[in-house]
Amino acid sequence: MQTDFTSELKPASPGGSVLIEQERARSSIPVDALSEFILGKQWLQMQRSLLPLLMDQKLLSKRTQMNLSRPDRYLLGLARAKLLRRMADQYHWSDEEYEMAKYLVDDVSPYTLHTTMFRQTLREQASDEQQQYWLPKHGRWEVIGAYAQTEMGHGSNVRGIETEARWDPATKSFNLHSPTLTASKWWNGSLGRTATHAIVVAQLLIPKKTAAKDPVEYDRLGPHHFVVQVRDKVTHQPLDGIVVGDIGPKYGYAPMDNAFMLFKHHRIPHDAMLSRYAKLDPETSVYTKPEAPNIVYGSLTEARSRIVNHARLVLARAVTVAVRYTTIRRQFKDKDDHSEAPETSVIDYSTVQIRILPLLATVFALHFTGQVMKETFLSNRERIAQNDFSGMAELHSLSSGLKSLCTDLAANGIETCRRAMGGHGYGGYSGLVQLNADYLSKPTVEGDNWMITQQVARYLMKVAKRITEKRGTKQETRAEKLLEKYQLPHNGTGFNILEDHSALADAFEHRAARMAFQVYAERVKQGRSENEMLIKMHQLSHAYSYSILVRNFHNQITNLQDFGQETINVLWDLYTLFALFTMQNNALEFIQTETVSLDQLSAVRDRIFELMRRIRPHAVRLVDVWALPDYLLDSSLGRYDGRVYEDMFHRAHDLNPLNRITVNPDYKNPELVLGSGDGNAILAKL
Amino acid sequence: MQTDFTSELKPASPGGSVLIEQERARSSIPVDALSEFILGKQWLQMQRSLLPLLMDQKLLSKRTQMNLSRPDRYLLGLARAKLLRRMADQYHWSDEEYEMAKYLVDDVSPYTLHTTMFRQTLREQASDEQQQYWLPKHGRWEVIGAYAQTEMGHGSNVRGIETEARWDPATKSFNLHSPTLTASKWWNGSLGRTATHAIVVAQLLIPKKTAAKDPVEYDRLGPHHFVVQVRDKVTHQPLDGIVVGDIGPKYGYAPMDNAFMLFKHHRIPHDAMLSRYAKLDPETSVYTKPEAPNIVYGSLTEARSRIVNHARLVLARAVTVAVRYTTIRRQFKDKDDHSEAPETSVIDYSTVQIRILPLLATVFALHFTGQVMKETFLSNRERIAQNDFSGMAELHSLSSGLKSLCTDLAANGIETCRRAMGGHGYGGYSGLVQLNADYLSKPTVEGDNWMITQQVARYLMKVAKRITEKRGTKQETRAEKLLEKYQLPHNGTGFNILEDHSALADAFEHRAARMAFQVYAERVKQGRSENEMLIKMHQLSHAYSYSILVRNFHNQITNLQDFGQETINVLWDLYTLFALFTMQNNALEFIQTETVSLDQLSAVRDRIFELMRRIRPHAVRLVDVWALPDYLLDSSLGRYDGRVYEDMFHRAHDLNPLNRITVNPDYKNPELVLGSGDGNAILAKL
Repeated sequence: MQTDFTSELKPASPGGSVLIEQERARSSIPVDALSEFILGKQWLQMQRSLLPLLMDQKLLSKRTQMNLSRPDRYLLGLARAKLLRRMADQYHWSDEEYEMAKYLVDDVSPYTLHTTMFRQTLREQASDEQQQYWLPKHGRWEVIGAYAQTEMGHGSNVRGIETEARWDPATKSFNLHSPTLTASKWWNGSLGRTATHAIVVAQLLIPKKTAAKDPVEYDRLGPHHFVVQVRDKVTHQPLDGIVVGDIGPKYGYAPMDNAFMLFKHHRIPHDAMLSRYAKLDPETSVYTKPEAPNIVYGSLTEARSRIVNHARLVLARAVTVAVRYTTIRRQFKDKDDHSEAPETSVIDYSTVQIRILPLLATVFALHFTGQVMKETFLSNRERIAQNDFSGMAELHSLSSGLKSLCTDLAANGIETCRRAMGGHGYGGYSGLVQLNADYLSKPTVEGDNWMITQQVARYLMKVAKRITEKRGTKQETRAEKLLEKYQLPHNGTGFNILEDHSALADAFEHRAARMAFQVYAERVKQGRSENEMLIKMHQLSHAYSYSILVRNFHNQITNLQDFGQETINVLWDLYTLFALFTMQNNALEFIQTETVSLDQLSAVRDRIFELMRRIRPHAVRLVDVWALPDYLLDSSLGRYDGRVYEDMFHRAHDLNPLNRITVNPDYKNPELVLGSGDGNAILAKL
Repeated sequence: MQTDFTSELKPASPGGSVLIEQERARSSIPVDALSEFILGKQWLQMQRSLLPLLMDQKLLSKRTQMNLSRPDRYLLGLARAKLLRRMADQYHWSDEEYEMAKYLVDDVSPYTLHTTMFRQTLREQASDEQQQYWLPKHGRWEVIGAYAQTEMGHGSNVRGIETEARWDPATKSFNLHSPTLTASKWWNGSLGRTATHAIVVAQLLIPKKTAAKDPVEYDRLGPHHFVVQVRDKVTHQPLDGIVVGDIGPKYGYAPMDNAFMLFKHHRIPHDAMLSRYAKLDPETSVYTKPEAPNIVYGSLTEARSRIVNHARLVLARAVTVAVRYTTIRRQFKDKDDHSEAPETSVIDYSTVQIRILPLLATVFALHFTGQVMKETFLSNRERIAQNDFSGMAELHSLSSGLKSLCTDLAANGIETCRRAMGGHGYGGYSGLVQLNADYLSKPTVEGDNWMITQQVARYLMKVAKRITEKRGTKQETRAEKLLEKYQLPHNGTGFNILEDHSALADAFEHRAARMAFQVYAERVKQGRSENEMLIKMHQLSHAYSYSILVRNFHNQITNLQDFGQETINVLWDLYTLFALFTMQNNALEFIQTETVSLDQLSAVRDRIFELMRRIRPHAVRLVDVWALPDYLLDSSLGRYDGRVYEDMFHRAHDLNPLNRITVNPDYKNPELVLGSGDGNAILAKL
């Protein structure tokens, strides 16, 4: 740390630490109590106890990591992941504590696929015997596993993957082979440099019993899972017949070694095929497979539910930074303010409020639905344990639609918050650069956001069909009830969206239900092609998912008892802002479904202003509720103590490695670092 | 380059190079002729002649730069910028050729502020004498200049900057001083490590003539420009009383050394103050300043016009990559297609078309308005030369509104294209990672996109006021004519938006004009506060700017003669798609201004489908028109020859430095590179 005259300087008064405390004094929202209600006492306690352990480790300091090269980011990620596992051993962390530590360190681990998909697939697809062999090795990290499904040429369409596993009855082994370049595995996390093993998804081919032997003809049995050793235990080099490596830099996820991998007639033994369900008799070469296991379907649903809760905390980070910074940041004065007061906090401009406050409301909306989803998922798991799969279709469609909508909201919300912060929002000290780059993968992974909405729409069309045709078995699902209720357009005095909280949620359900009937009619009755319907199906899915977000938000506040009226009122304001802001942005759909009138919509604008004015004084406390530690945020702009400018300057002045370099600015001289005679040394790094 | 069995592999048939040629064969759009018409023969010729020179320089190869650390990215940028200047000397490049070279290399130069704002400010603000001293040194790069206006605490509000320049009559020098930390200069490009000099914007303070001498009282005369030596000519170290450095990593612009800079009673001579307009007599300490020079106003306008044309080529890059890749990429089959044909090109899905094709149309829309802006700007410059400033207000508002809208369209468009490309869109070989990170600064710089729209709206409100009150001097501006025409809502049979190209442009003008009267009425007649109006003012600005984009698009096609009917028809389709797509996304405004009816809007959806179906076969040729060389795109997905997968694999397999590292995966061992015994060497880099 360099000492010079700048160490004596302070920001212009009033400084951020004064301003943010003034803000907190403006509101009486009980931050700790609300925080405990939302996040849970235990979760908060865990966060508090782990933080000092993590912050004590220099390896886990985030402050300068943006300066590193991509290979160094991988090595840093590897070092951190090793350290975290050693700490887990040392402190006997539970699974929850280990997950909490990873959440706070916020650096994707190169071992991620080992601890997620590799384990999960073994649990779901491996026979008891295979599990007994692999799971202990997995737990001790004696093998490091990855999951290799996606290929260069096929992602969403898993049935189209090209890698082949041909069964050879003579040697009782599979011949694993990549017939083309596009058959190359691609994107597979933890496999590029780290893993020793991988679950490989390949097309299973078995010689036809009756056909000629030269050339052998095969039955194609579709994609199956094989556990494959990829690298040598000692040298960590790829085994013969395998080419594997890291695919290179991406938008985000710098520490993750996403892989390419190809096979050339690579032999793997019979027991490499995971055989909990699909079985191949090594003696007779007879293949058997029971009906599709619903549990797998369930774990995809579970993953998508988790994404909703994750989206909530991601968006909370962006909103926390934006609210705190725009409260402290002052620029210009309101044109109608002719006083001698200091400049206006930028959050007081309506153009800033309209971008940040609806997103603050969205964080709460995501939370309440995340909670409901978690409960629904748990109760459904109990039903499945009793062989009752009746809730699966609804839950799957629910989780698909919410995954698409909520990751869109969070991904777009980060960028909206960033732009609302003006110049410093573009800076590295916003804390949003990595968050943004990493999160932008989410609208695509675990089901592309435009594609998986088809599943929701098809499900709703089925319900619409049953109700319209008055056939099939009626089920007590949410979609059934909703479409039953609004089989005809709501004809009455309309929904009192401006004065009745419940009517506002009704309006969202009416829009969704009416759109479901419209889409059904166009596709089935008018016979429009599916391709022509896809956009409207996407809109239907979002409309339905919004109706869930709004209804859950409504119901959860209704059930709240323990908080004072001021807090309850603010929550109702957040609810109403979320709903009306959404309605305004989707106005045409509300009109075309005859849900609201143009006159009602015209009144929405003023109501939104009023809500923003009422929420504004509570904004800082409402983000404090999310209890995001400075260590996690790693943001000068979003610091809890408001010392925005001091921290930015400290990072630039004291921590920036570029400032250790003195350059030679003379263009005629290729020397870059003054006096080094380095000529074009940088060339060697290209 | 590693040789192994993968060198024999080819992508699954049909390969990308076959597919893209099939696509080109489907359309007869005359690519070269249209390209020449749009970009100009001379420009294309220049691009063709410079490309081989640049591609011949290994230093200018982009293929592995994403792997570098941020300090190395700066050094690489420095090396490249030096090389380009040496090449300019060697090949006697014109200014245009030098700009073209920078455009193709596409790496921001650490000398950028030297060649832009430093020069421009000298030209505008320096006296003839000062220019004679500085400009030759500038031209020879003997001094490297930066521009230091923005501070940590003040960006948009230039009048609020805190840096002070106190005139000391005794020593005939200015005392340059930063009274607070927030007075630190911040963001100033080229200044962090590179520059030797800077134009510093500081508050000019002159001792009051009549006041007591102890303490001295000062007149505050507002921000002025001073040219200040910042670093020593020999050691390149900051001079005494100056602390300056690079602020650290940002979203993008890795090679740019954006600066912080503070002064402690740093003395600069009298002639440091740029004195073309503002003058301070060193003998009498008398200050004089003529009225605001309109030329400065003009150069801001010019900068914003350039941004529109820049946005066009940026968006063209994203759209080129997206169109080419989604043509080659195949995934699933249309549910209604039961043939044995290969999988469907993803661009044939309506959900992909609706994201990419309107953006393709937007590229053309931006182009035609960019052309018109350029002409308007040139003719206005001639009028200014004849002391006719009557067009300035209109042009300034025009350029502000278009800057805001067009940079929004381009910034959002890049991300829309990226997401439309699914998984590989998240990869580094999309060629969009740096483009996106760099371009995300544009909605904020040169006037924040939400803030500068106020200027447009205020201008339109003035026009609305004059027309409503029938007072003031009528001017023959576009806004005047438009608001005159639609002073009353259009009452007739409505605009025939679906069948009449011109009526479609009329509808956009009607919406904008009616919104202007609405905003005027709410603000002036109903007395709503400005803060309450800001959002609607923003919407008004966008509505007005859209009307310009649509009208120019319409007029430019109308004037086209030399192209065959097929091409003209496709251009009309692009025009109509751009307009109707925009209308659908802003439906409420079109309804609330009584521009179109709900029935008309309901018909828009089918028309958009039809337009997309018609444009689809021409998509590849329509992006070819923009003549973006592979060297510029640096994108596997967007390659002209369609060899998408081959190039991705080559980059991952042969060029990725991470693959030279073999890791030690054992978490109990802190060693990272196997056998190196590096322990926690990575710690030293934090």
